[in-house]
Amino acid sequence: MDIAIDRQSAVPIYQQIVRRIREMILSGTLPVGFRLPPERRLAEALGVNRSTILTAYRELKADCLVDAHVGRGTTVLHPPAPQAETGSGRDFPWRQLFRSGTGQSRDPVIRDLLALTERRDVISLSVGLPAPELLPLQDFREILNALVDEVDAALLLHCPTEGHSPLRETLSRWVASRGICCSPREVLVLSGSQQGLDLAARIFLDPGETVFVEEPTYCGALPVFRAAQARVVSVPTDENGMRTDLLAALLQRHHPKLIYTLPTFQNPSGIVMSPERRRELLDLAFHFKVPILEDDPYGELRYEGEAVPSLKAMDDHGIVMYLSTFSKALFPGLRLGWLVAPPPVVRQFTLVKQAVDLHTNTAGQWILDRYMREGLYEPHLRVLREAYKARRDTMEEALREHAPEGLDWQTPFGGFYFWCALPEGLDSASLLAGAAQEGVSYLPGRSCFAEEPERDFIRLNFSYPNPSHIRKGVALLSKAVGDLSRTARAATWQETATPPIV
Amino acid sequence: MDIAIDRQSAVPIYQQIVRRIREMILSGTLPVGFRLPPERRLAEALGVNRSTILTAYRELKADCLVDAHVGRGTTVLHPPAPQAETGSGRDFPWRQLFRSGTGQSRDPVIRDLLALTERRDVISLSVGLPAPELLPLQDFREILNALVDEVDAALLLHCPTEGHSPLRETLSRWVASRGICCSPREVLVLSGSQQGLDLAARIFLDPGETVFVEEPTYCGALPVFRAAQARVVSVPTDENGMRTDLLAALLQRHHPKLIYTLPTFQNPSGIVMSPERRRELLDLAFHFKVPILEDDPYGELRYEGEAVPSLKAMDDHGIVMYLSTFSKALFPGLRLGWLVAPPPVVRQFTLVKQAVDLHTNTAGQWILDRYMREGLYEPHLRVLREAYKARRDTMEEALREHAPEGLDWQTPFGGFYFWCALPEGLDSASLLAGAAQEGVSYLPGRSCFAEEPERDFIRLNFSYPNPSHIRKGVALLSKAVGDLSRTARAATWQETATPPIV
Repeated sequence: MDIAIDRQSAVPIYQQIVRRIREMILSGTLPVGFRLPPERRLAEALGVNRSTILTAYRELKADCLVDAHVGRGTTVLHPPAPQAETGSGRDFPWRQLFRSGTGQSRDPVIRDLLALTERRDVISLSVGLPAPELLPLQDFREILNALVDEVDAALLLHCPTEGHSPLRETLSRWVASRGICCSPREVLVLSGSQQGLDLAARIFLDPGETVFVEEPTYCGALPVFRAAQARVVSVPTDENGMRTDLLAALLQRHHPKLIYTLPTFQNPSGIVMSPERRRELLDLAFHFKVPILEDDPYGELRYEGEAVPSLKAMDDHGIVMYLSTFSKALFPGLRLGWLVAPPPVVRQFTLVKQAVDLHTNTAGQWILDRYMREGLYEPHLRVLREAYKARRDTMEEALREHAPEGLDWQTPFGGFYFWCALPEGLDSASLLAGAAQEGVSYLPGRSCFAEEPERDFIRLNFSYPNPSHIRKGVALLSKAVGDLSRTARAATWQETATPPIV
Repeated sequence: MDIAIDRQSAVPIYQQIVRRIREMILSGTLPVGFRLPPERRLAEALGVNRSTILTAYRELKADCLVDAHVGRGTTVLHPPAPQAETGSGRDFPWRQLFRSGTGQSRDPVIRDLLALTERRDVISLSVGLPAPELLPLQDFREILNALVDEVDAALLLHCPTEGHSPLRETLSRWVASRGICCSPREVLVLSGSQQGLDLAARIFLDPGETVFVEEPTYCGALPVFRAAQARVVSVPTDENGMRTDLLAALLQRHHPKLIYTLPTFQNPSGIVMSPERRRELLDLAFHFKVPILEDDPYGELRYEGEAVPSLKAMDDHGIVMYLSTFSKALFPGLRLGWLVAPPPVVRQFTLVKQAVDLHTNTAGQWILDRYMREGLYEPHLRVLREAYKARRDTMEEALREHAPEGLDWQTPFGGFYFWCALPEGLDSASLLAGAAQEGVSYLPGRSCFAEEPERDFIRLNFSYPNPSHIRKGVALLSKAVGDLSRTARAATWQETATPPIV
């Protein structure tokens, strides 16, 4: 293919390639069905990295100009017909009419990663999903059958914005068994716990105001806070969780409007905040009058050690909003999460949720309420704890066996993830192309940091892949890390210098 | 009961009553189970309107201090125990920590109304729901059975933020039969069309920027735009829809960032924008580079006359975002809506939706896709059109028979509502108490206006109540209007004067 590359140009090389191929497709030079050269061959022909070609092809695919399938390669699709372009918005300045800041925070690395994990030939260690084969399908079938028998119009109409009342009752009893005392009116059903983050940002954060997060933090929280145009300040953590010894000074310096924390089996680090730190956090937050949003998706999934009470259970002042979800142990596709918070907070969340989506889908609430009332949840959690503990042990063994020098981790006592520090000088985003080539994916650590971290990490999930995929995935990934380490070592001191931007 | 009322006080009388009763409950003067006097008797004893007592009791109920049941009256509940107050957030300034503006826009009239419509003894002409007895329950049962047979883990895991791909395909074919040409990638599945309004506000409206709406407009859109801190400017309408003769001047004056319109069987007015006006709106919006959000929940529900093409179908420039929902003809509890828009818009909505709720619930998408693929939707719509036409005719007859002088309406050609102008000097919020007493509810017209209207309206729904409820409801409501008219006429000229606020 005739692709001239200008290495002096300010346009990145991959974009030059994209532009040229796009021209050739739109002009008909490359006909429909034409198979683009394999990545490796084009990379050699043009004298560029294979990852550059990988990125270019992915961009062409995102624009629906080519289709890529394992085994069939990358082929040219029908370009959008001129007729379809009428009314397509090409003569309208859509992008310039969007608010600045909305939606632009999505890391392109993550987007590419998501595309990658859809490939069947890639072992995914990247997701935060439960094991599909352990989902209680049979129970779900039986409840659906009951639903079919009992279904009446009420189920299909609207329900209150606060949630299906029986489910709110069920949840208030459920959390009571976890040391959280609340009445049903302190429970709000959410369209997934992600919605809780979004509503909290809307309710507490004016543009420019500050939210505290842990460093690292849940990667899905950062886009929410950025979309609220909040300033995100990371509180350092260690093996006991948030560094409360630094907290008073940071609170005085930054006057945050909200503290967001995942104290138990933190995502991504797997760390459990110690009871002493929890107490200090509660006292400091009360002293400075800063509400705490406690996110607890993994608390039920402990594989060893003693349970630590949630912040909410320890909260004498009523300053904690407790967020949880069914998506880690049950059916993430039902999109059901919940908030426990003092009545004025539930009221405010309800008012905002009303405008956002009226209420959470009714049938899903009915199903989960029934599931819990039949006492099926606790036995299911026991099954999960056993299975996930075995998977965690498998991943630990595989890491011990394969991990290259410089890859460091702590074995988590619960949750879904190993959080591995990469060898000095390695970058989790650059590693991704190599890992993809080996056929394995992970979550790049930098998507969990508000600011660029000193050292980079990768997050490996052990709940979703089965044991054989865990072993194979860790082996493949270790190879990719090792390969990149060898390349990176040779280039390190030159490449880390910062070129002046002119 | 010992309630001293200070008529000189700036505190509204109903709040004085609430405060005193609350004190008596919390101090134990009124014991648990104590039955408060009937509204009428307390009103007479205190020399206030009965609606004042009604409002006070409702407020006490919202605070969980009393419980109200038809037949049993209003009784005192257990006040929150001191023990329950630890951790209840009472010593934390929650309300002062909420952002100003969030959620405060909810009209207390509407809140009271929603409470009212939950009472079984009230005929609801207020909602925007389909007839429960016409929902295709049998089909739904069969599809749920198929789901139970075919269910696999994929269904219960996440789906793409853009939506379940087969449903996006199905929807692109469905709208094609309505003259809208789009590819599946121009379709975004939403958690109800309400979410589309919210995402549009987030994407297009910075605080202080202007959005155009019709006068009147969908009452659920106003809180969304207010929460975005947007300036809402109402474009006058007449029997042909939005007054496009005024639009150029308004566009030049206000520089809106978005135009929100319901051109077909508008909610609440029932009006259809004429094809000429549609063309003018499209041309002006393109000229001024303002995107249009077309909300079309009712387009399929036409009972007479010729179909008018949607704005999206007429859109040569690609400036229209088309929003619709399944909640008006199928299962509102599934919370499924959808947007058709040019690719860059779908991309932007997707980025924001990703942070808001990850994706819409998977099972609901599966069910609706199956329902449509089996060709069940169109025959169902035919059933609805016939039934709703009959209900509309019933309401028209009832209005002709019962309506008091001065109540004006146009019979709608489709949709869900009669939009009735109240007799001069009557106020739709004040009427509500009287209507509730008669046992009928409606939507007060002022919740559909961004600014206080010159003349007040009520919106009457004919899709949800059955024909006998329609007849009875209209008769009861007509009585309430007549009663209030007689009272209002005597007091009109004095009460409309504006007292100076000192």
